Amino acid sequence: MKPRFLTLAHGAGGVETEEILNHLLISRVPDYLTRALGGVGLDVLDDGATLKLGDKHVVLSVDSYTVTPPFFPGGNIGLLAAAGSINDVLMMGGRPVAMMDAVVAQEGFPVEDMEKIMESFVNTLEENDVALIGGDFKVLPKSDLNGVIISTLGIGVADRVIVDRNLAPGDKIIVSGPLGEHGATILALQYGIDLEEAQLRSDVKPLTGLMLPLIEEYGEHIHAARDPTRGGLAMTLNDWASSSGTVIVVEEASIPLRKPVVAYAEMLGIDPLSLASEGVAVLGVAPTVAEDVVERMHELGFKHASIIGEARSSEKYKGYVLYRSAVGGVRILEPPRGELVPRIC
Amino acid sequence: MKPRFLTLAHGAGGVETEEILNHLLISRVPDYLTRALGGVGLDVLDDGATLKLGDKHVVLSVDSYTVTPPFFPGGNIGLLAAAGSINDVLMMGGRPVAMMDAVVAQEGFPVEDMEKIMESFVNTLEENDVALIGGDFKVLPKSDLNGVIISTLGIGVADRVIVDRNLAPGDKIIVSGPLGEHGATILALQYGIDLEEAQLRSDVKPLTGLMLPLIEEYGEHIHAARDPTRGGLAMTLNDWASSSGTVIVVEEASIPLRKPVVAYAEMLGIDPLSLASEGVAVLGVAPTVAEDVVERMHELGFKHASIIGEARSSEKYKGYVLYRSAVGGVRILEPPRGELVPRIC
Repeated sequence: MKPRFLTLAHGAGGVETEEILNHLLISRVPDYLTRALGGVGLDVLDDGATLKLGDKHVVLSVDSYTVTPPFFPGGNIGLLAAAGSINDVLMMGGRPVAMMDAVVAQEGFPVEDMEKIMESFVNTLEENDVALIGGDFKVLPKSDLNGVIISTLGIGVADRVIVDRNLAPGDKIIVSGPLGEHGATILALQYGIDLEEAQLRSDVKPLTGLMLPLIEEYGEHIHAARDPTRGGLAMTLNDWASSSGTVIVVEEASIPLRKPVVAYAEMLGIDPLSLASEGVAVLGVAPTVAEDVVERMHELGFKHASIIGEARSSEKYKGYVLYRSAVGGVRILEPPRGELVPRIC
Repeated sequence: MKPRFLTLAHGAGGVETEEILNHLLISRVPDYLTRALGGVGLDVLDDGATLKLGDKHVVLSVDSYTVTPPFFPGGNIGLLAAAGSINDVLMMGGRPVAMMDAVVAQEGFPVEDMEKIMESFVNTLEENDVALIGGDFKVLPKSDLNGVIISTLGIGVADRVIVDRNLAPGDKIIVSGPLGEHGATILALQYGIDLEEAQLRSDVKPLTGLMLPLIEEYGEHIHAARDPTRGGLAMTLNDWASSSGTVIVVEEASIPLRKPVVAYAEMLGIDPLSLASEGVAVLGVAPTVAEDVVERMHELGFKHASIIGEARSSEKYKGYVLYRSAVGGVRILEPPRGELVPRIC
C-alpha cells in the first residue's frame, strides 16, 4: 500500500528508500532517458553516473549532506561533503578532478562555524588536488531549516568505469578497515552519549591515497567498489548480490569491527553492519589478485584490510547475502529497514 | 566588519551573497584549483562551469531550489528545478543532455504532493530530451526542515562556451520577454495576496526552444547570456558590466515589464528590475546581428523580445549600469542589496 506521508525510513538508504525512489522517480523515467552519451545512469544505480566523451569517461556523483550535529569527533559536514563525493567518484573508478557545491544554510547560523566548515571543505579538496569550479549559496529562514545542508557534485575522469553489477562468481569481497565508525559516532552524539568514554570517532576521510594506486595497478580486476555509507555493509552487499545475480557469503570472523562500535550497536539493538562508514572501501576483486590487493592495502596504511567473503553462483540463494557466524551457523543478512538514524550523512 | 551570523540577505543573490561567498569560499581556493581540465570555473563565476574533453566542452551547473510554497501559479518546485538547470546549461552555450538530482524532504511531507512535483520534474526533462542519470534522496525530521529542497546538476555539451565577461563595447542587450514575473508571484504568495486578482503567474519554463536555434544560428555572435533569476536584471547587468569592464546603458522605455508586476513591486517598494525571472533570457549580442536575433526570437514565439540597451566603453562609468528613464534623466542602476525575498527559487 502506498504511504500517505514521507517517513524518516524513506530517507534512511535502506529498503524503503529504494521503494519510494522507484515509485516517485525511477518508474516515471522512460528507459531511453536513464542514461546519456553512452554512459551509465539510472539503469545501474551505482555511486554515480558517467558520460563518455572520446575515449574518456566523465564520472559524476551528486549527494546532499545533511548530518547533524554539523561538528562531530573526527570531522564536520564540510569534510564529510568533500570526502563523500571524492569517494563516490573513486568507487566508480574515477580520478577526482573537480567539485561543485550548493550550500543551504539557516538564517542565524554562526559565520564562524561556517568558516570552519568551508575551511575543512576547501582544505580537503586541496589535499586531494581537486578543483572547486562553481556553486550556489542560499539562506533559509530559521523557521524553515535547522543547520546547514551541503550538496556536492564530485567530478572525475576514468579510463574504465567500475560498475558493481559486474561482480562475478568467485570474486573475493574485501573491506579496507573497521566498519560502522561514522554511524555509531553520529548516533551516539544524537543520543547524548559521552563519546570519549565510548571511544567513538567518525572515520570520515577521502580514500584517494588508497584507491588511485589500486585502480592503476589492479583496474580491470576490481569488478565492484563502494563506500558503505547509509545502510552500511549490509546494504552494499545486498545491492551487489541483487544487481549481479550472485549470492555473497561473508564470514563474521573476518569482518573488521571495533569493540566499542559493536558494544554500542548492541546496546541500541542495531546491527553494526547497517551502520554507515565514511572512510571505508568495499571491493569485489578477481580471486587471482585478491591476496595481492589486500597486501597492497596494508602497505598503503590500511592495516585492517581483509577478505571477508566471496561471491558465488547459486540458483537457490541468488540475490541474497549469507552471513556465517563465528560460532557456526549461517543466516541471511537482510538489507536494512526502518529509520536507523536521521541526518547521519 | 565581518557579520557574526548569516542573514537572509546573504542568500538573496545580491551584493551580500557575493561578499559572503568570497569571504567563506572563493578567497580560500588557490587560483590553480579554481578550474579543471582546461574549462571555466570559479575564476569566471558564470551560470555554471565547464570541462574540456577532446574538442567538446561539458557544461555543468549546480543549484539548490528551495522555493516556498512549493506549488505556485505557473508551476511547482519540480518544474522550477528542471527548467532552472536546463536554462543554466543553455546560458553557457550548452545543449542540455542530462540531469542528476538530490532531494531533501521533510518527514511528513505528503507523498501525493511529492508525486506531483516529481511528475513535473520528469515531464520537463522528457519534453526537453534530457536524461535523468542519477540522484540522492533524504528525509529530515520535521523539526529540521519545512518543505522540500531539490538540488540539481544540469549537464550539457557545447562546441563553444558563452562566457559573459566577453561582452564587448557595442554589443546590444536583448531580453526575451517581460521581467520579474516569477519573483512578483512568489512574493505575492508569501504576503497572502490574491494572485488571480493581482494577475500574477510565474513565468518558469525551459528556454530550450529559444536558445538551441539561437546558439546554432548566431553562436559566435552571442557574447553573453544569462537567465536573470535571483537579483533579476539589475544583478545580471551589474555582473556583466563588472566582469567585462564595460558600462551598460539601458532604456526604461524598451524594457518589457507587465503592469501588474510594476504595480505590485511599487506597492512593496521593490525595484521590479531586481525581481527574479525563471523563463527569460538576457543576451549580449554583436550589433551586426542584434536586429536579426530579435526578429528570430519573435518567430520562435517570444513576441516581446527587444533590444533594451547596449554595452559601451567608458573610463568614468566602467563597471556600472546606467538607466535612462522614459521621461529623461539617467541614474545608476545599483546591484540589489538586502533581503528581497527568502526562498524565491
